[in-house]
Amino acid sequence: MSFFASRWVPVPDAVRELPLDTKLPAGFRAAGAVAGLKPSGKPDVALLVCDSPEAVSAVRLTATAAPAAPVLITDERTAKHALRGVLVNSGCANAATGRRGVEDAAKCQGAAAAALSMGPEHVAVASTGAIAHSLPVDLVLKGILAARAGLSPDGAGAMQAAIETTDRSTKRAELAVELAGGTVRIAAQCKGAGMISPNFATMLCFVETDALLDTATADLLFGVCVRRSFDRISVDGQLSTNDTAILIASGLGGVRIEPESADERLFGEALDALLRQLALMIVADGEGAARIARVHVTGGVQEDVEAAARAVANSPLVKTALNGGDPNWGRIVQAVGGALAGGAVLPMDVWIEGIQVCAGGAALDYDEPELAAAVTRDEVEYRIALPGEQAETEVFFSDLSHDYVTLNAEYTT
Amino acid sequence: MSFFASRWVPVPDAVRELPLDTKLPAGFRAAGAVAGLKPSGKPDVALLVCDSPEAVSAVRLTATAAPAAPVLITDERTAKHALRGVLVNSGCANAATGRRGVEDAAKCQGAAAAALSMGPEHVAVASTGAIAHSLPVDLVLKGILAARAGLSPDGAGAMQAAIETTDRSTKRAELAVELAGGTVRIAAQCKGAGMISPNFATMLCFVETDALLDTATADLLFGVCVRRSFDRISVDGQLSTNDTAILIASGLGGVRIEPESADERLFGEALDALLRQLALMIVADGEGAARIARVHVTGGVQEDVEAAARAVANSPLVKTALNGGDPNWGRIVQAVGGALAGGAVLPMDVWIEGIQVCAGGAALDYDEPELAAAVTRDEVEYRIALPGEQAETEVFFSDLSHDYVTLNAEYTT
Repeated sequence: MSFFASRWVPVPDAVRELPLDTKLPAGFRAAGAVAGLKPSGKPDVALLVCDSPEAVSAVRLTATAAPAAPVLITDERTAKHALRGVLVNSGCANAATGRRGVEDAAKCQGAAAAALSMGPEHVAVASTGAIAHSLPVDLVLKGILAARAGLSPDGAGAMQAAIETTDRSTKRAELAVELAGGTVRIAAQCKGAGMISPNFATMLCFVETDALLDTATADLLFGVCVRRSFDRISVDGQLSTNDTAILIASGLGGVRIEPESADERLFGEALDALLRQLALMIVADGEGAARIARVHVTGGVQEDVEAAARAVANSPLVKTALNGGDPNWGRIVQAVGGALAGGAVLPMDVWIEGIQVCAGGAALDYDEPELAAAVTRDEVEYRIALPGEQAETEVFFSDLSHDYVTLNAEYTT
Repeated sequence: MSFFASRWVPVPDAVRELPLDTKLPAGFRAAGAVAGLKPSGKPDVALLVCDSPEAVSAVRLTATAAPAAPVLITDERTAKHALRGVLVNSGCANAATGRRGVEDAAKCQGAAAAALSMGPEHVAVASTGAIAHSLPVDLVLKGILAARAGLSPDGAGAMQAAIETTDRSTKRAELAVELAGGTVRIAAQCKGAGMISPNFATMLCFVETDALLDTATADLLFGVCVRRSFDRISVDGQLSTNDTAILIASGLGGVRIEPESADERLFGEALDALLRQLALMIVADGEGAARIARVHVTGGVQEDVEAAARAVANSPLVKTALNGGDPNWGRIVQAVGGALAGGAVLPMDVWIEGIQVCAGGAALDYDEPELAAAVTRDEVEYRIALPGEQAETEVFFSDLSHDYVTLNAEYTT
């Protein structure tokens, strides 16, 4: 089965999938180790290193006003366009840990930099796990040493295992992209099962490529692709304290991607498809999720279509209806009305799986058995048209299930 | 047991509770009837009439951009400061019904006005029930005639029964308020079990008093009290298409309430306590709710404390922790951080039931068994201090339970 399993991610022509045990793109080594942070005894510390001194990178971090210590370190104490190493731990988010947390994260960054023989400003740190617990620094340091000993071009799987928490699916890929200048490689390792859950989850993604990019191109492409993927998903509307996405380009594949070239477009399309499919895998793996949906909103004002799409994606009424396979489109009208409250009455059109159910805010006659069947599929698409046509947006989201409540109400820290 | 059951609603000294079977304040009659809109055969059409031609009124309606037809009629086709009649139906929200819905609501308004021998501009209409279904006008007209025959000063209970949907508690009260000028009466009937559920619920509240108020005073007092009660609650963050709150003052008790007098303050305090307790009863009766909470946020900027309080109240992670009796305060920090994303890092202090758990964004040592016991009570209070002290707000909310998912996922329209 193709990595690109969603109907919402067409596979670009230039992209070829490689087996998951393919070596990382040229210049990269990775490893995972058991440091003892996870009570389960599973791997919990990962290292990624790029052996090219000329590597360029791009970073996107959570926008939360309560960032975790590793986010602060990566944001404020690294050369974000020249990263060559990444230290990741699962089992502890090092969030809501104050100054001590920052000191702990800095110690780990320093130790990883020493282990990788580079300055600490080249090493990003990322953490995922429970909030409000101090990082067991000694364990992480032990994990760094063990991981360093295991660094290998074949280490993507080991790294993946060490960054996962409650993930039910493995979110990684190895791609080749056929450009005019030659073939480039892209690999990615990603985790996430909920935008945030202090017991379990957060969203992390690490992307490696052997393409030769300048820093502005790397940042532009990665920024656009993150906005179209990880920024467009919601499991429970909750922004993590720890979200981190990092692209590193070694340049060692020998194929240069010139700004505004056809190859830049093809590379961008490949990166876009990769990140969108990974983002959809996070949604599908959302805590307790049984079904995922896309809401596509058009209208006259970007702020309004954005608010409407987010409101639908985060409405517990829409999400429970999605869970129940219930074509309860009145809840969509209600969610949009609530999101845009205080303004004029908005006549809206609504389609579910291409079946129009509402025109100008009023119910239509439609084929009820056809609609009932459509909303029980694995992927459900809602389309909402507000007055005007200049703006549009989309959000991917999961349902709200009994398992979500069980996971989040019954397991306490 | 007192109507004022919550610790968050101190009973004003001037207020005396009367038995629920007390007659309505002077000048009011009410009734309920079975019209056949509810499949259960329970009462579903109510009439309220004020027999004083000098009555004054105040109205507050949902701010949604997708208002139901009766909301449009009440907003646009009544003399909102001179209402003397109210027609309510349950069993059908008459929402997302377009122009036909408005025509249906207008027909019912006209029939109620004829039945009550007044102009239609004096009659408000309100509906609650399933969205996206046309109002069965013939049944409502039949109900109006039946209710008219039953109009009585003893009709508050019958009216209450006809406006309820999935309510598990009866939300009404009869109060006396001792003023310098004499005793005035206030009565209220209210329903709501979720901010909105298209299958079931919405929030309606009707308040009658025999006090003599001018229209500006009535509007001011009612507006302030609605803002401090029904505007401060959330079951699932979902704004209804149909929310309606109406105060009618007959003036027939003979006690005049002068603007800016001590009596105005006492009357306002009584109305405030009444509406706050009713609002808390709605939260406690939220779909599937087992526990309710108050989040109190202080800080420098009103917009920020409001966003933070709403984010906590509507966070599925906070709400599931509340359901599980889990002192998982990392979720509060995460919710506030997400609400105020994009700005500076916010050092915040957090208390749960008076126990400080977080200072300046970092975990504190605290008595864990004491905290664990505190969060399993019926009412839980969270306090959050953001930098600065000029602004504050509060939101009351319910938990997120398996029953919420069951009610909203498994019962389809």
